[in-house]
Parts: sequence; C-alpha cells; structure tokens
Amino acid sequence: MNTRETLKINEKGHLEIGGADVTKIAESFPTPLYIMDEDYIEKICNVYSQTLKEVYGDDGLISYASKAFCCKEIYRLISKFNLGADVVSSGELLTAKSAGFAADKLIFHGNNKSRRELELAVTSGVGYIVIDAISEIDLLSEIANKFGKKIKVLLRVNPGVEAHTHHYIQTAKVDSKFGFSISSGAALSAVKKVIGSNLILSGLHCHIGSQIFEIKSFLLAVEKMTEFYKELKEKLSLDLSVLDLGGGFGIWYNDEDKKFSINDYAEFIKSIAEKVKECVADKKIKKPYLILEPGRSIVGEAGITLYHAGFIKHIDGIKDYIAIDGGMFENPRFALYSAKYTVVAAENMNAIANKKYSIAGKCCESGDLIAEDVYLPEIKEGELIAVLSTGAYNYSMASNYNRNTVPGVVFVKGGNVRYVVKPQTDEDLLRNDI
Amino acid sequence: MNTRETLKINEKGHLEIGGADVTKIAESFPTPLYIMDEDYIEKICNVYSQTLKEVYGDDGLISYASKAFCCKEIYRLISKFNLGADVVSSGELLTAKSAGFAADKLIFHGNNKSRRELELAVTSGVGYIVIDAISEIDLLSEIANKFGKKIKVLLRVNPGVEAHTHHYIQTAKVDSKFGFSISSGAALSAVKKVIGSNLILSGLHCHIGSQIFEIKSFLLAVEKMTEFYKELKEKLSLDLSVLDLGGGFGIWYNDEDKKFSINDYAEFIKSIAEKVKECVADKKIKKPYLILEPGRSIVGEAGITLYHAGFIKHIDGIKDYIAIDGGMFENPRFALYSAKYTVVAAENMNAIANKKYSIAGKCCESGDLIAEDVYLPEIKEGELIAVLSTGAYNYSMASNYNRNTVPGVVFVKGGNVRYVVKPQTDEDLLRNDI
Repeated sequence: MNTRETLKINEKGHLEIGGADVTKIAESFPTPLYIMDEDYIEKICNVYSQTLKEVYGDDGLISYASKAFCCKEIYRLISKFNLGADVVSSGELLTAKSAGFAADKLIFHGNNKSRRELELAVTSGVGYIVIDAISEIDLLSEIANKFGKKIKVLLRVNPGVEAHTHHYIQTAKVDSKFGFSISSGAALSAVKKVIGSNLILSGLHCHIGSQIFEIKSFLLAVEKMTEFYKELKEKLSLDLSVLDLGGGFGIWYNDEDKKFSINDYAEFIKSIAEKVKECVADKKIKKPYLILEPGRSIVGEAGITLYHAGFIKHIDGIKDYIAIDGGMFENPRFALYSAKYTVVAAENMNAIANKKYSIAGKCCESGDLIAEDVYLPEIKEGELIAVLSTGAYNYSMASNYNRNTVPGVVFVKGGNVRYVVKPQTDEDLLRNDI
Repeated sequence: MNTRETLKINEKGHLEIGGADVTKIAESFPTPLYIMDEDYIEKICNVYSQTLKEVYGDDGLISYASKAFCCKEIYRLISKFNLGADVVSSGELLTAKSAGFAADKLIFHGNNKSRRELELAVTSGVGYIVIDAISEIDLLSEIANKFGKKIKVLLRVNPGVEAHTHHYIQTAKVDSKFGFSISSGAALSAVKKVIGSNLILSGLHCHIGSQIFEIKSFLLAVEKMTEFYKELKEKLSLDLSVLDLGGGFGIWYNDEDKKFSINDYAEFIKSIAEKVKECVADKKIKKPYLILEPGRSIVGEAGITLYHAGFIKHIDGIKDYIAIDGGMFENPRFALYSAKYTVVAAENMNAIANKKYSIAGKCCESGDLIAEDVYLPEIKEGELIAVLSTGAYNYSMASNYNRNTVPGVVFVKGGNVRYVVKPQTDEDLLRNDI
C-alpha cells in the first residue's frame, strides 16, 4: 500500500486517514462513506499554487476541475489557496457561487452549454467562458449584447496531441466532440470569427487527455499551442494573453500506475511553466497568463471509500466474492472503464493479503463489481473494507441506481471527521415523485 | 422506425407518443425529458397478466422488475393489472409502499441486502424474500425470531443456463455474484440449510440473463429447474410450491434487435407456462405457483427521451457531432455497455435520413455519447431529437454527473401529458451540501 503521513496503518493495524482510525469513523458515520483527507487536498493545492508562482510569477492560475469532485466545501477549501475553478454546468457554477467562491476565478467549460447556462455565467461574472462550437460564438455575442457585457472568452482547440498514461500520439485529425482542430484550419477560422465579434478573445484552451504520467506529452502540447499563438501573431497580429493547458495529471489507483508524490506533481507544473517561458521567448510571443486545470490529482488520492463487507460467496473452482454495501451506484468506474482499484482490509492492514477476491456491489446487475481478483487477507462478514483513490469521479458520478441512496462525504483533518455532504435520505429518493 | 398506434408519425411529420405531438410536449416541459407511453405499459401489463391466467390459471404472478423504472406512479399503474413487483433495495420497497402497493405482492431480491433492508422487508410484510447467500439464511432466521414472523423465502439458484439475445450456453460452473449453483451442489446445501431453519422455503428463483429473444433458453431453464424440484422431492421429500423464473425478455433498441409485438411476448409467457405444466406432469412434482419477472419489456419500448439539438460540429473527414442537452448523466447505457439506440428527427420524421451523425452528450468527457454513426436527415441547431426505447434503465440509472440535474418523467395518455417524476431543481443539487 502507498502510505503517507495522513494515510497510514496505525498501531492497531487499522487504516488511518487524516488522523482518524477508520474503525472509529465507522462507529459514527454509516457506510458506504466517502472519506476525504483534507490535509492532502490542502497540501497539494498549496504546492501547485506556490510552484506555479515560483516558476511563473503572478501570471498564472491553478484552476481546479470541479467535475472531479464538486460540493460547496471543496470551493471553500481551494479558495484558501488562491485556486480558481473550472465549472461545466449551471449546477457546478451555482454550487461555487453558493459557497461564496469568487466568480471571476471561474472558467466555464463545456461542449454544449445551454443559453440559460451561458446567461448565468455572464450575469455571474465568470472569468472566462471557453467556446467550444461555432454557433456558440453567435449565441454568446447575442448574450453580450443583451446584457451589455464585455465577455472574455477562450477557444478550445485540439493541438493534435492525445495522451493517456505512458503513451501519447501526435495526430493531425482529432476525432473529438470538443474543440477546433488546429491542423485542419478549424481553429483559425474560429479565432477569426471570435475576433470579428463583440467578444474578447483572451486566449486558447486545450486538454490532451487524462491519467497522464508522461511530461513529454504536455511539453509537446506547449510547443504546438505556442506555435499556433505565433501563427496567430504573424497572420492576424493577434498576441493572445491567456494560455489554458487543461488538466490530465495521472494518479495512483493500483500498482499498475506510477506513484507520484506531491513533489513529482510540482515538478510537472515546473516543467510545463518553464517550457511555456522557453517557447514564448523562442517564438517571440507575449508571455501569456498560464492556466492549468488539475482535478483528479487534487482530490483523487485524497479520497477513500469505506464499506462493510456483506455476504461472502465462495464458488468452487471459480472465485470468492465479497459483496459490499456499495457498488456501481456510488462508484461506476469499474462498470464504465474497467477501472482498477486497490482494496484493503481496513481493520486488518498488517495481515498477509494471500486470498484472491472479487468485490461485488449490491446492485442487481452482474456487472456491478468494484474490483476483480484483488488480494486480501481472509475477510469476515461485517469487516471494514476500504477502496483507495476514490476521491475523484466517484461521488460526482454517483446515481440512485436500484433506488440506492448516495453516500455522504466526510472531510477528515487532525482526527476530526465532519460531513461536507450529508448522505441522501429515503425522503430524497421520493422527493420528486408525484 | 417501428411504429405503433401510440408511437407514430402524425400528419405534420412529427413524432407522436400517447396521442401527443412531441413538439407540443416540448412547449410545456423542459428537455431532456423522459416520456412514457402509458397505454403501452397498460396494454403489456394486461396482456402479460391475462395470458398467464389463461394458460396457467390463478396460480401465477407477473412481478414487475422495478429496477427497470421505479417511481410511485409505476406501482399505481401496475397494481391495476394485478401485477406484483420485484424490489431490490429499501428505496424501491419504500417507493412501492408509499404508492400504496400491496406489500404481500412484493418480492425482495438482492445479493447483499442489509440487516436494515431485511428488517424493513419483514416488518412491511413482503410476499417473498429471495435468499442469495448462506449467511443470509442465518441473518433472516434471527430477524424472524426477533419479530416473531413466519418468513416465506425463495432461494436464488443458478440452473447452468446463461442466455443473451440469440445465444445461450449451458454451463456447469456459473461465475456470478448471484445465487447458488445447482450443478456444484451449492444449491442443495443451501436448500437443506433453509429447511433446517425457521424460515419457510416456498420455492426457488433463477434469472438466466437479459435481452433474450430465444424462447429455447427459457424452456431449457424450466427443464433444469423442474429437474431440480424433482431431485428435491426425491431426496428431501420437499415439494416446493413456488417457481420464480426471473426476467430477461429482450426489447427492440435498434434494427439489430428483433421487434417483438406485445403478442410475441404473450407467446413467450404462454410457451413458458405450458412448458412448466408439461414438466411438472412429466416429473410428477406439484404444479408450482409460477412467477415471471419482466421489467425491461414492460417499460423499455414505452419510453422515449426528448432532447433539443445543441451545437452541431462538423469535423472534416471524420464525423458530424450533434450535441444534445442530455448525455450520460441521464442515459449512461452507451458509456456502460456500448448500447445501441435509434435516434430520430422528432419534428421531421418523414425526411430521408441520409446524413451520418454521432450524438454527443453535454458532459465534459469524450466518452459521453448516446449513439455513434446513426442516420438522420440534416439536423438544425434547436431541433428536437428523440431517442427511442429509453423507458428502462435510463431514469433509474441517472446521476448528477457534472452537476447536471436529473430530467423529469412524464406519462402520456390520450394526448394528456403529466409529470410522474418532476425534474430535479438546482436546490436538489445543493440539498445535502454543508
């Protein structure tokens, strides 16, 4: 197991997170339970923010990608470290606003924002709106007129770099529902249309993929993006002032993944920022305000999910299933992506993990698994099981499938445990039924 | 397109469902919108119920598998046709109860029911609890004692038939998180344990798969199950009184699927019931109370989802994307199973569908698609798009991913449209945030 000061095995052999023994947490909070290590989030926010400042000065912003984990409290937390935030819907925008988050530090993304969402973004005064389609330029121009507002926009472009984990490819033709391809000329046309409108084109945005552990792919994206900035300067005398390189830093889910320390992530930030400085000098373009959008790397490893093992089923010659009190309704990533997780015996961490289990959810669907063929010590029914690295895209993707309720989320710090999202109740399930 | 009296193209070339023109519906109800054809549901419930009665007398029950689509109104509707219902969680059970559904017509399923769920099932007086694990026998016995109740149970077994669409296999070793294998002897052991307990073993349950269009697989399951009933009679002098054959009837999603009429489904019911009668006569076992559990086939084709086309993106040499105002948050089945759907131009149904599109959701995730490479006439931004056969496992799997709200559900009948589930509001998103 990958331990750290705030995620470790205590003297009782129990899993401890944020200074709290999970067996103690389970005495006061029902499982399944999403548990987030507040210190970890704070530390990585601080390091990201400070590193960018050291290398790049005040001309940069770490913008947290809310979609990884969105609730009011996360906005309160990140604002303490001067992070901005990406939002991708009116729901995320309203959550940020209701937490008192500064609207001008919000960046509104999305491939199909509705008129209502765009109007809300404009009237809320978000920092930038990221345009993703030609007709969005017209719609947003119309909204700018309607409200008499100057709207700063970024344009999402595809630089022809696609990256995942250790691999990346350069591709001229990008098949994506997002953005405008640079190589096809679509990006240039879109830029021309925006600068011919009443909108203020502040810069460009790209996002090359997710779960990336390979710095070279980011550096290549910087090359491609600044090359295009140079082209825009030469062709259109346009010296853009913002460069948004998106997110995509990988996290550790299980031992097939690299384990980055917070310092390793800082090195990523540093390398990217240095590369931007180097490229803008080389290409003689304006040093842009640099935006980076980590989401998963801020909250993913900070979170674990705690379960009680339910019925355990031995199928002779096939496998042993541990059924947990959660499942695809609160973590659909195995069902969606065959995502791999690390599962631990939370109250018996020092025992030898020599028995192979599959972890089944409680939904009435054969595909409702959380992990297949993971090694644990012999587990007894009723024991606590934890799944690690569930802080990103678990709560945010949770559903009421099988009419199960969405678990609560607690933040833990210095041994103190507090709800930041209360668990859904039976009343919540029935609230909108006629 | 597969039309029917209650799903057709009207004289304006618009899609009409339940007597209502979808363009009219969209004037009063926001999209995305789940629209259910009440007549279709009523008709199939009635035919299922009547057919079973005709062939099998009063000793049978059609038990609607709630997990396909669960809300209060569906329980009110099915109860008019004397259907029972399967529930798989306290949430489904409470929904049925709050709709006034007769608890004794409920069957409680699930591979990992919690103590709370089992106690709720027992105190609510559900008809049968389906035992799925050895320790569940002990837990339920203890609960029987605690509440001084006689609890009727079924035992979920694996008959060694696995079926999907047009294929089925016979297998001795079943890898499933559900049930007890007959061939391994696990089922026999579990039966012995139940009959040695204070629980009343009424019968056995099996479920051989889903999206099945092949009657032979069901008939084979009947063979296997009644063979085991015979074995139990011979070995244990146990003449079980209930046989629950589960669900799994396939529905039409697109033209790769067979299109069953309601009468075709009735033929399925008839064949299965006849086969049970034949087998029990042959094997000289008691004619059991016969339970069938259709879910998808009752609500799936009854439902459509209505969207507004948003931004349309042409990527030269690659494809054309239509972005809709929905996505994987309200229909995750493409992302989960690469499920195929039929997409139609709802206000231009008679136009020739000669342009290839992919339908993208609004979530910030490349994999958020609803369909790939489907043919439509040229679509304009703002036009209505409908996706057919979304009545099952769409609303029930909906999430708040990207902090999008879950759409409302309307029932339509005789041209009248009414909410049965109101759309979520922004307040709902924030309700449990601290």
